[in-house]
Amino acid sequence: MNGAQILIQTLADREVDVCFTNPGTSEMHIVAALDDVPKMRAVLCLYEGVASGAADGYGRMAGKPGCTLLHLGPGLANALANFHNARRARTPVVNVVGDHALSHKRLDTPLESDIDALAGTVSGWTRRTYRSADVASDATQAVAKASGPPGRIATLIVPADVSWSDAVKPSPPNVPALMRAAARGMSPEAVAVAAEALRSGEPAALLLGGAAEHGPAMRAAARIAGATGAKLYCQSFPARLERGAGRPPVKRLPYFPSDVAAELAGLRHLVLADAADPAPFFAYPGLSSRLAPDGCAVSRLADETEDVTAALEALADEVCTLAKKPVTALAQEAGRPTRPTGALTAESVASAIGALLPENSIVVDETNTSGIWLAAATAGCPPHDWLTLTGGSMGQGLPTAVGAAMACPDRPVFALEGDGSAMYTLQALWTMAREGLNVTTVLFDNGAYAILDLELQTAAGPEGGRRGHELIDISRPALDFLALARGLGVPAQRVRTAEEFTAALEHSLMEPGPMLIDCAVPSVASAARTPGVQ
Amino acid sequence: MNGAQILIQTLADREVDVCFTNPGTSEMHIVAALDDVPKMRAVLCLYEGVASGAADGYGRMAGKPGCTLLHLGPGLANALANFHNARRARTPVVNVVGDHALSHKRLDTPLESDIDALAGTVSGWTRRTYRSADVASDATQAVAKASGPPGRIATLIVPADVSWSDAVKPSPPNVPALMRAAARGMSPEAVAVAAEALRSGEPAALLLGGAAEHGPAMRAAARIAGATGAKLYCQSFPARLERGAGRPPVKRLPYFPSDVAAELAGLRHLVLADAADPAPFFAYPGLSSRLAPDGCAVSRLADETEDVTAALEALADEVCTLAKKPVTALAQEAGRPTRPTGALTAESVASAIGALLPENSIVVDETNTSGIWLAAATAGCPPHDWLTLTGGSMGQGLPTAVGAAMACPDRPVFALEGDGSAMYTLQALWTMAREGLNVTTVLFDNGAYAILDLELQTAAGPEGGRRGHELIDISRPALDFLALARGLGVPAQRVRTAEEFTAALEHSLMEPGPMLIDCAVPSVASAARTPGVQ
Repeated sequence: MNGAQILIQTLADREVDVCFTNPGTSEMHIVAALDDVPKMRAVLCLYEGVASGAADGYGRMAGKPGCTLLHLGPGLANALANFHNARRARTPVVNVVGDHALSHKRLDTPLESDIDALAGTVSGWTRRTYRSADVASDATQAVAKASGPPGRIATLIVPADVSWSDAVKPSPPNVPALMRAAARGMSPEAVAVAAEALRSGEPAALLLGGAAEHGPAMRAAARIAGATGAKLYCQSFPARLERGAGRPPVKRLPYFPSDVAAELAGLRHLVLADAADPAPFFAYPGLSSRLAPDGCAVSRLADETEDVTAALEALADEVCTLAKKPVTALAQEAGRPTRPTGALTAESVASAIGALLPENSIVVDETNTSGIWLAAATAGCPPHDWLTLTGGSMGQGLPTAVGAAMACPDRPVFALEGDGSAMYTLQALWTMAREGLNVTTVLFDNGAYAILDLELQTAAGPEGGRRGHELIDISRPALDFLALARGLGVPAQRVRTAEEFTAALEHSLMEPGPMLIDCAVPSVASAARTPGVQ
Repeated sequence: MNGAQILIQTLADREVDVCFTNPGTSEMHIVAALDDVPKMRAVLCLYEGVASGAADGYGRMAGKPGCTLLHLGPGLANALANFHNARRARTPVVNVVGDHALSHKRLDTPLESDIDALAGTVSGWTRRTYRSADVASDATQAVAKASGPPGRIATLIVPADVSWSDAVKPSPPNVPALMRAAARGMSPEAVAVAAEALRSGEPAALLLGGAAEHGPAMRAAARIAGATGAKLYCQSFPARLERGAGRPPVKRLPYFPSDVAAELAGLRHLVLADAADPAPFFAYPGLSSRLAPDGCAVSRLADETEDVTAALEALADEVCTLAKKPVTALAQEAGRPTRPTGALTAESVASAIGALLPENSIVVDETNTSGIWLAAATAGCPPHDWLTLTGGSMGQGLPTAVGAAMACPDRPVFALEGDGSAMYTLQALWTMAREGLNVTTVLFDNGAYAILDLELQTAAGPEGGRRGHELIDISRPALDFLALARGLGVPAQRVRTAEEFTAALEHSLMEPGPMLIDCAVPSVASAARTPGVQ
């Protein structure tokens, strides 16, 4: 076998068997090796940022790494922004980057660049394989490092001559076993401190992040809230938030600092469960870097190096025992908005989604300003998962929807997108069409970088920023998403009323494969709101 | 004034007055400052790779830096691939990257990342400004470093608080003058060695690169060729090649190693003028890393740290004097192909372009396999400039055409594109429409990553690569470039015969503003050619 064949076989043996790729010449032996490993499913993306975002969505939902196969430094560079989001989501990804043959690198030919430096900015582990005899153990190591916990991007740089040279694939005993990270501990002192804070009788809250935003950790948080009356928050941008009827009602912290301050006003105790002390997304002149109110004690139950599930379960046991009465875990009541009628607005689109969202849906949310009504409209829907823009780098939504749909082919996937953010990685629509993925894209088409219009009002004042507002006006010329979607092979429909949108959404739920619904909605920035600073 | 106003004013004062941007919140004070500096023209790009590619095209044609304004690490990451191409082209660019306020960075909020590491991979100079009082001198330094020679990317990282804090703009005496790099020297010994080689009577050639691919250096090369009979070559991917009737006929070295070997067979002397010793673009099993034939003596007249124009002029003077007869500089004869008729093929498209290309055109060529007939078809056209994919990173063509058109608004610009390569940075079409740029995009639409089909044949053999060829088949689903162009605001036309293409091209030459012509041509990879290895 050559190194390329050993690589693909090793990854597939380790259950890393979906590969999002945009390959080039230096990866051609790896592409050729697909013939030898039928288990590996390779998915072509027309741009590398689609591949990395898809691997992010896949890893978030599959709970195991997918892999990417990228072409040298420039291919990796194109993937970095969505790897940045994946790093913030702690998504497991095995990132294979081809490189020139070792003997070729000193020639400094046109595609030579510093792959290691690029990889280092997003990877939790990076290795270059120097001999085809090492491919099996290096790839095994990459899978282990990616898997975590916590999940991370493990980058394996594979020179072309390592791919094309023959080696004996080591039999299993000669390859290091897949070493999962050692079980992590929790701090009984931190549990005791948190229990005391939450039982103080003063206003208290739990802030959930990372692994506490879904699964057993979140169920423990629901018991804690039931026993103590503590409010449940999660970070502004959760990687995967379980929500809906029967799940605990966890509120995402707002984006704008003034809204966070209003939300947390009066709070006396804040317990962090794998979450950071609340800080503004951006700095503003004169704004504090801490958003918890003065007089609020912040304690840390567990961080990402600890077992937050064990810590929350211990805390739940403690407060339930101390409650000395049966405790009912906090749970969201079922309920949906009525079907909206009349004008198509970001609010009526949200209501229609709330009215129709099927059980077990996966919602990928990159709506930015237009999405502010979604949380309330969908809170009581049947259980579903909500995936967000963890790293703040636009262009995550459509690719992540591709990966989520690959991981969960039987679940309906919704990509809720802004027009501005859709344009970073629109090529993802083509992969949805090619793979027949069941993704409904709802495009909040407001003709604006609305979030920047708001921020520019803050920076320049209501009278200033004339040329700036012209600069960031994306309505000249208008983007035609119907044409763009069709150009990429995805059926599309434009709707102009709430009724038309509801009908289009119902139609999309019946049809297999992708669909884009273009919703012309007014920009929320046209309201004279000046956010951010207080 | 605040730091943002000083920054924009300083750049404009130094004639860096076109800014390609996709800004975010941390750059909003810089965007607001546009009101105060009317001279600065800001151009919005819907994706950062368009901004960096446009700055590359602008710098290649303007001969001075444009600037980019990008949003934090992820914005820079999205721009890196085309900065990689710009670095290989030695294009001057002032790259301004916004960052969080200094006090905000320790919070490790979602958009925090290692900007310096990213910048280092493409920049010849990187600085972070720490005080608004330093903005004027740092920006001045950035312009000087970008300008070179040689041109480079100078990255200035500007934290948000540096932008929003006030400072006194230093009066000119307090700001360092714009320090151009010291004049560079040349080596008389290298000139003597080259003169002896070229006058040996044995087969000899000059290989031109960098600054020798246009302007006075190239005119000196034409005199050398006239005096000695040396052939003139340039690198496979010149940044800006002057060519056409009356210019010296300089042949680009072929891409595939076997073609280079055939081209250079029998050569006994090769003189490098700001060019690298010919090497394969990629390594292949068993292929030598050196493409000059055995027995060919390679000498270096000048490298990028030296004054290649002075060296070529000295060499020209030397060989012309020694010739002891009047020397006529080598010059291409005028001549165009006849207008093609019949089937639309990559060859007939090339002939039509050759039949119609206007004087003073700028051709941005990212055709890859479909472009192989272009050089011959356009050799005798009126003088024009030819800009190519210097760094091998796809997605350079359309953005570079945007920048070239901004730099030279009175010249017709042609973007010759493959369908695969167009899809990396297609958002460039929108900026063409928004700015009304006179760019005609000719899309060689063969439904294939044809270059990879060829490379996969090499890697997997004619019988292998079944799943690989399926993977890289981009015809499922077919991309509809008519719809895509219209979705981005650019008029488009699909042509099916050589006559239709010629008519569409003539129409586009008459109309101002952008136009896309979609040419369905057969893939050259369908011919059973196995390239690369010999």
